[in-house]
Amino acid sequence: MVAARFQIAVDTLGSESPTAQIIAGARDFIDANVDCDLTLIGRSRDFSCFPESRCRIVDCATAVPQHATLLDVLRKKSDSSLRSGLSLLADSSVDALVSTGNSGALMVLGRQIVSTLPGITRPAMIKQFTRTTGSFWMLDLGANLARRRGLLSEFARIGSAYANSIGGLKEAKVALLNIGTEAHKGPQYLRDTAVELARDPQVNFVGYIEAHALFDGIADVVVTDGFTGNVVLKSIEGALGIARQHVQHALASSDDSKHEAVVNKVNSSLNAQTYNGASLVGLRGVIVKCHGNTNHIGIRSALALAKHEIVAQVPQRLEAQFEHLPDLH
Amino acid sequence: MVAARFQIAVDTLGSESPTAQIIAGARDFIDANVDCDLTLIGRSRDFSCFPESRCRIVDCATAVPQHATLLDVLRKKSDSSLRSGLSLLADSSVDALVSTGNSGALMVLGRQIVSTLPGITRPAMIKQFTRTTGSFWMLDLGANLARRRGLLSEFARIGSAYANSIGGLKEAKVALLNIGTEAHKGPQYLRDTAVELARDPQVNFVGYIEAHALFDGIADVVVTDGFTGNVVLKSIEGALGIARQHVQHALASSDDSKHEAVVNKVNSSLNAQTYNGASLVGLRGVIVKCHGNTNHIGIRSALALAKHEIVAQVPQRLEAQFEHLPDLH
Repeated sequence: MVAARFQIAVDTLGSESPTAQIIAGARDFIDANVDCDLTLIGRSRDFSCFPESRCRIVDCATAVPQHATLLDVLRKKSDSSLRSGLSLLADSSVDALVSTGNSGALMVLGRQIVSTLPGITRPAMIKQFTRTTGSFWMLDLGANLARRRGLLSEFARIGSAYANSIGGLKEAKVALLNIGTEAHKGPQYLRDTAVELARDPQVNFVGYIEAHALFDGIADVVVTDGFTGNVVLKSIEGALGIARQHVQHALASSDDSKHEAVVNKVNSSLNAQTYNGASLVGLRGVIVKCHGNTNHIGIRSALALAKHEIVAQVPQRLEAQFEHLPDLH
Repeated sequence: MVAARFQIAVDTLGSESPTAQIIAGARDFIDANVDCDLTLIGRSRDFSCFPESRCRIVDCATAVPQHATLLDVLRKKSDSSLRSGLSLLADSSVDALVSTGNSGALMVLGRQIVSTLPGITRPAMIKQFTRTTGSFWMLDLGANLARRRGLLSEFARIGSAYANSIGGLKEAKVALLNIGTEAHKGPQYLRDTAVELARDPQVNFVGYIEAHALFDGIADVVVTDGFTGNVVLKSIEGALGIARQHVQHALASSDDSKHEAVVNKVNSSLNAQTYNGASLVGLRGVIVKCHGNTNHIGIRSALALAKHEIVAQVPQRLEAQFEHLPDLH
């Protein structure tokens, strides 16, 4: 067997999706990636199907409840599976952590247990969206609700470094999400951010982008605040759900014998759009969050993304980008 | 011929869509609605195809440019087609105005020329979205960028009265758009608004809604700030565009002879979602805005919506709802 090069931790607790799906996805992943070993955090009895040689098991029964408030999460010092995973990442016992649980908890404990990279004040949630050709990345998807110029400029640099490393781009085109493309459109903090980014040598700023143009290839990186980004992500998810219903309905009423296959094909394309993992970037380590109710395919792709970020050295690239930079704040 | 009962003005200038489309849509509408006459504002030579008996023509060559700043719009006192239309509405020469031009201009001039209803501080842009069964309305879609508790509570009342009158509902279920459904989620101004709405006897408040659940039938009215609403609207539009591409691709590669028909059916369902008109509510009159680059079908449905709002007496219902109410601010 091949000596392991990457160690990825998986927090299997506190998820909305059945543990069996998480296990199946993790199992698929190590079978397909002989250079990766897993650290499985959860109930050890669930992990019997894994080869001992490829897995470390951290027995833990305590999950962060899906609906715990952030205050509860920070106060509760109890040894939850999430805290264990983040601690393993903080002391470099693992290269990456994949979580299926409470996003808010991941973000606050991530900042508390795994420190932010020098020059970065707040980590951000970033996700890849696939276009008919290529893809784009959007951040922040919910790690920060504040709408401050400096914060958005920081996200622009984080997103740019991320897309350049993981997407293999030279100079990622960065756009600011706004409700119009003219310079005078939108709230003041966005217009101030646009001025700041136009001057930033670290960012290839291409201006404003409207949400209907996200998939048009204008930008590689779309920057927005965490509230708006989270709403956009979920709006796309909801709209694609409606689209699936229309397709099923249209095909069902057409006497096309093969419509089953077409529906499945469309569904898989549309699902991929929303069910991939998102990454918490800006911390000293790779952290990937799965969609709340993902299946084994979602887990496998989240693990693949974590491996990709380790190989692309995303944290190192970010650190290099933020070194010796004038503070934005 | 039937005596006209409704007089609807159409501003045919300053649109991104070809005048021919606007004309065709307006023509379709009066042919199908013998109880409506039109006041056509624009270049009189464009209106030769309309029966004189059914149309008044306001000759005007000056449009508000699509990209004019609001400051320009307010300063420029020149007699634009939009100002003419709003003036006709203000002095009750018409029952409704349908505009195809600059949204920002419509909103600022609407407030300036057509006054707000008593008790309403700011008009809001509202739009109907169709679900597989029934529909829901969302506001504000861009008339106001401020995020104030009082403003959102006002939108909740406006949306509730609008849905009850136009949708024939008894007690519209009103939800606040947020990034989670638990009480502790989201920014403070949203949590304060939720507390306020829970106490408001005028509003049947059902709590928070997340964007992925918009089409799930939880709420009849979804309340959010104008920036977020505008972004949600355009995100849905962009996502449905991507869905259309996936469907076309999936069907093209399936050897289904009838796939043309299916694509068209899906497209029309998805287009209807985004290309319907939106209404500016809260002013003394009915104002419907078409999608920027709509076709004749969009114009016709915008005119149908305007007629529907006149018949449902939306402004009168709103006025009744806001009379003798404690000021929210």
